[in-house]
Amino acid sequence: MTSVPSDLDDYLAAHDERICRELFDFLRIPSVSARSEHDADTARAASWVAQSLKDAGLAATIHATPGHPVVVGEWRGAKGAPTVLVYGHYDVQPAEPLELWTTPAFEPTIRDGRVYARGAVDDKGQLFLHVKALEAHLKTRGKLPVNVIVLAEGEEEVGSANLEAFVEMHANELACDGVVISDSSMFAPGLPSVLSSLRGLAYFQIDVAGPAQDLHSGSYGGAVVNPAMALARMLATLHDDHGHIAIPGFYDAAREWPAHVLEQMKGLPFDEEQFRQETGAPALGGEDGYSVLERLWTRPTCEVNGLLSGYTGEGAKTVLPSKAMAKVSCRLVPDQTPEAIERLMDAHLQRVAPGGVSVKVMHLHGGRPWRADLGGPLFDAARRALSAAFGRDPVITGEGGSIPVVGDFERILQAPVLLVGFGLPGESAHAPDEWLSMDNFTKGMRAIATLWDELSAASS
Amino acid sequence: MTSVPSDLDDYLAAHDERICRELFDFLRIPSVSARSEHDADTARAASWVAQSLKDAGLAATIHATPGHPVVVGEWRGAKGAPTVLVYGHYDVQPAEPLELWTTPAFEPTIRDGRVYARGAVDDKGQLFLHVKALEAHLKTRGKLPVNVIVLAEGEEEVGSANLEAFVEMHANELACDGVVISDSSMFAPGLPSVLSSLRGLAYFQIDVAGPAQDLHSGSYGGAVVNPAMALARMLATLHDDHGHIAIPGFYDAAREWPAHVLEQMKGLPFDEEQFRQETGAPALGGEDGYSVLERLWTRPTCEVNGLLSGYTGEGAKTVLPSKAMAKVSCRLVPDQTPEAIERLMDAHLQRVAPGGVSVKVMHLHGGRPWRADLGGPLFDAARRALSAAFGRDPVITGEGGSIPVVGDFERILQAPVLLVGFGLPGESAHAPDEWLSMDNFTKGMRAIATLWDELSAASS
Repeated sequence: MTSVPSDLDDYLAAHDERICRELFDFLRIPSVSARSEHDADTARAASWVAQSLKDAGLAATIHATPGHPVVVGEWRGAKGAPTVLVYGHYDVQPAEPLELWTTPAFEPTIRDGRVYARGAVDDKGQLFLHVKALEAHLKTRGKLPVNVIVLAEGEEEVGSANLEAFVEMHANELACDGVVISDSSMFAPGLPSVLSSLRGLAYFQIDVAGPAQDLHSGSYGGAVVNPAMALARMLATLHDDHGHIAIPGFYDAAREWPAHVLEQMKGLPFDEEQFRQETGAPALGGEDGYSVLERLWTRPTCEVNGLLSGYTGEGAKTVLPSKAMAKVSCRLVPDQTPEAIERLMDAHLQRVAPGGVSVKVMHLHGGRPWRADLGGPLFDAARRALSAAFGRDPVITGEGGSIPVVGDFERILQAPVLLVGFGLPGESAHAPDEWLSMDNFTKGMRAIATLWDELSAASS
Repeated sequence: MTSVPSDLDDYLAAHDERICRELFDFLRIPSVSARSEHDADTARAASWVAQSLKDAGLAATIHATPGHPVVVGEWRGAKGAPTVLVYGHYDVQPAEPLELWTTPAFEPTIRDGRVYARGAVDDKGQLFLHVKALEAHLKTRGKLPVNVIVLAEGEEEVGSANLEAFVEMHANELACDGVVISDSSMFAPGLPSVLSSLRGLAYFQIDVAGPAQDLHSGSYGGAVVNPAMALARMLATLHDDHGHIAIPGFYDAAREWPAHVLEQMKGLPFDEEQFRQETGAPALGGEDGYSVLERLWTRPTCEVNGLLSGYTGEGAKTVLPSKAMAKVSCRLVPDQTPEAIERLMDAHLQRVAPGGVSVKVMHLHGGRPWRADLGGPLFDAARRALSAAFGRDPVITGEGGSIPVVGDFERILQAPVLLVGFGLPGESAHAPDEWLSMDNFTKGMRAIATLWDELSAASS
């Protein structure tokens, strides 16, 4: 079994106190990308990251964008070895509501083996552990076993509006054999995790129009098709009684999940009752024949996100509404595409729409699903490196939401993406009292430091 | 065939100009009951009605209520003859938007044989023609063939909040053999009409609750029951595919319509395409197997009046809503009761509610349906009187909405109610350019004057 190389382990142990101090300095910068009053702080965080990369022994450049800058660090001295790109972000979510923080959001504090601060886990702590893993190599051995590009953006929390264009424009400089992102969580304490799938999205607005204006429900009710009732009946056709989506052709492109991944999923320590309590719902639900984790990670969905029609104030108003609106979105799994799902949804809704109303379907947003290959040298090296640092093989997890940048990297750079995160459930990434486990930080640095050795060894 | 008694006809002809002048005086009073700045005008209208009754030869009293006053006129000199109660209202709708009136709302103007003014048809013109019909009797013959009570309220346009209590409290003084209300319309020009049915109402708010707060549709979608989707599916169970209401037991209390009324309905000059154009809907709809008029007048409904859930703003927000709300109301036909329909709706919704959400049904409003007997001396007298004034038998019409006061009179006074109106389609009762046909006003006075002779003759 692989272990963490002792020179790197010793270096990190010897410099533990300083590394923590530096992490705290980074966390003290309120780089809230959503708030223009923090623009100077966000710029300062970019400079801080660039300086930190230089101190570690990389070259670093700050690139201006129409929004917040992108920091690129590079070390390209490993001739013939693979090139990896590490992506992270130095911007953070707003800290509000401030009064719900036990200690101030930008004054990092250790309690119970966790560092509490805005950005601790999302994503400053995880970006920084990569920088320190590189430093361990460069300060100990004077070199890295692979070529490394570090790309740190400052707009992840506001939608990464300028990242795709940046990667497109710098595709040659950013060319690599693999992308590593640490911006996710482990399934449970002690359980190193590789996030292997993300669901895509197709988001619709459905507008049903009937009479030219709201009508009196007494004088007209019964002889005019009610747009709100028509909408409800249309929405009810989207699923069958078993929770399967009933749009013809909806599942055609959905690829089966690998049997060993499904099998492994069954073994994950998941407490459905605890999950239910988190949601506050009286009971869980969903598609028949699937576990909660399968429903969340491996199955597409069709959800109503919003409804609006007629009179919604207090009391009774006897109106027959002239129109009704629903926001509806589908979470997608490979190889479903938003474009194909849009076509199927349009055709289905027009087919089930009753006479007496007109139906307009707008496509508001779309994103492709993603699934990792779970093979190849980068994944294999990660498995060994995580095992070395955490004392057990990683588990394969999924995610019900989307991280659009993953698909962008894969598409533009034509390189596999490895999502290996060191957060934990309950870490409050976008909420007050965000925290990062210091044990995960420590082991994360060692896992990543080991990863580069393992990747180099596998390809030599 | 009955004709209008010539003495009454002559009197009304001889005084035509003065009667018109008086009507215009009445219409000039802006007795807008909804607006407190018009309280003095509304009080003035009450006095005006009382004085007009006295001038006609009745005793008149103004009764204070917690809102606007009730005017009661009486003539009880027809010993042994039936007693009738005439109900009308002297308050009017607000005139806004003022800029859409061709001539000012409170400056009555004749154009094309119509008098244009707020209240012309609803209800001052129709109340006043009753007063003048009484005057014709009393000034010509010094007496009336029946005992008459005139009850004019000033809060009809704001929900008649104090009327039911007033009638309850004065039930002995208001005791009568029949109630006559002229506050409705003829089916078409030249077609005298008796309005024989009103639908009732049972109005609900349905609240569906799932998770304790809105959830991320990616992280939770598929494993939590979506309250908005659950609500849509529940609403879709309220009808079958033929537009019949699918709540078990819903039609059990619905009485068959008399065959001759249905038959007569078929002969009414009703243009479905013109009705469709009025609504602006791309096509009409409703319950299979029924004509538009049957759907509006004789069949119960179940309509969505409002929908609200989740995100309803611009663009896409990937929220799984914690709750969803619908306002739903049923129009009822005899002998359905709001109480029974409430029980059936509650039971049905709880039965079809999926696990994973809780459903709360609130009863916001209820009113009983009403159907006239279409028999008895009052109805028969009305048929002959209308025939005398308009030259043809009346048609029997229905109304999809409710006039709660009708049921109140019937219940408290235990007397049949005759709804005979002289408005016309397109009269803009609650809109700018409200009008009353002067021909209908003239014939209406004669029809009502004749009615009292006919009722007296039938019961002697």
